[in-house]
Amino acid sequence: MPLVHISLKQQLSPAKRRAIADTVHRALVEGLGIPAGDRFQIIGTYGDDLIYDAHFLGIERTDGIVIIEIELASGRTVEQKKKLFKAIADGLAAEQGFRPEDVFVGLIEVARENISFGLGIAQFAGAPPPHLASLAAAQA
Amino acid sequence: MPLVHISLKQQLSPAKRRAIADTVHRALVEGLGIPAGDRFQIIGTYGDDLIYDAHFLGIERTDGIVIIEIELASGRTVEQKKKLFKAIADGLAAEQGFRPEDVFVGLIEVARENISFGLGIAQFAGAPPPHLASLAAAQA
Amino acid sequence: MPLVHISLKQQLSPAKRRAIADTVHRALVEGLGIPAGDRFQIIGTYGDDLIYDAHFLGIERTDGIVIIEIELASGRTVEQKKKLFKAIADGLAAEQGFRPEDVFVGLIEVARENISFGLGIAQFAGAPPPHLASLAAAQA
Repeated sequence: MPLVHISLKQQLSPAKRRAIADTVHRALVEGLGIPAGDRFQIIGTYGDDLIYDAHFLGIERTDGIVIIEIELASGRTVEQKKKLFKAIADGLAAEQGFRPEDVFVGLIEVARENISFGLGIAQFAGAPPPHLASLAAAQA
Repeated sequence: MPLVHISLKQQLSPAKRRAIADTVHRALVEGLGIPAGDRFQIIGTYGDDLIYDAHFLGIERTDGIVIIEIELASGRTVEQKKKLFKAIADGLAAEQGFRPEDVFVGLIEVARENISFGLGIAQFAGAPPPHLASLAAAQA
Repeated sequence: MPLVHISLKQQLSPAKRRAIADTVHRALVEGLGIPAGDRFQIIGTYGDDLIYDAHFLGIERTDGIVIIEIELASGRTVEQKKKLFKAIADGLAAEQGFRPEDVFVGLIEVARENISFGLGIAQFAGAPPPHLASLAAAQA
């Protein structure tokens, strides 16, 4: 965790899709402080099956839209979430040529013990992992 | 937000899939009061890869099943959720010919600040949007 | 509910995909006590579009990876979640030949009233269902 779903409307090359995923992951590492190795991503391409509003909230979106859903351990502050959104949009704009208006992101927060990274074990059920420890301490 | 995933078992035409998504969106607008422009939907068709129980809870389901997952800002009341479920099932039955038994819906609630509609900003992190303001006031 | 998404990297036969889903469901029934009939699953195959870290937390993963996302009613204890993770990994290893290192699982918990199993009704909005009743009593 995080587990990231990246949904595209337009058909892009496998290399481009991979590059987009690279950028999204870098934003999570740099914007949220997750470990570089904590990378699990699923990309989907939907064409006409991805429907979006082109003007909601005054933001002009195009078919270049990307919808990013991130399942992650709960507990980040509002400021951390804002920083993450900015890191993703800035990164996709600078490195992948996205319009920032076309970057839609949603976070789904789950309890630390809700994740098994393999071996049938809830690796973070006991002590929080290092990158969440300061957060847990601050909340205690 | 809401971000809506619509999963079908049977292959339907692009026009029919779009019409189904139209009806689901209308149910969200009329049943839950979300803005008409707040529309972000992803449709998937799964064939044998969508598995369902044909009798659970005494509801007789068929291959015409649709599974609708809705990620939305938390805070709706149980009554509002009930009204939404009814609006979706009634709408899909009346407008798209679905059997109400075949309409499965799940809601995933997230904090208001968990959504970025574009531009790298958490648009609803500060004040709640108009359609959630009365709810926030009632809970304060 | 639960609603289960099973995401594979490698292309497997329809029969094998179905068998994997069977095993995952059995783990939910035996490991968590959900009713046998409470089965709703969606399988996806992603190839290069499923990206994973091969070493995170010292767990050696391969392209045989499976990512299982489970949306379920909230309220299970940490011990129940641990038992579920173990049941899934053990089952997929014993019955389907998976390496336990390749079994990634995430749980998304939602309120009981967030699910409609059909007919436009929130079936569990009132009294909890039998398999959740003891849990609800313990928490009351």
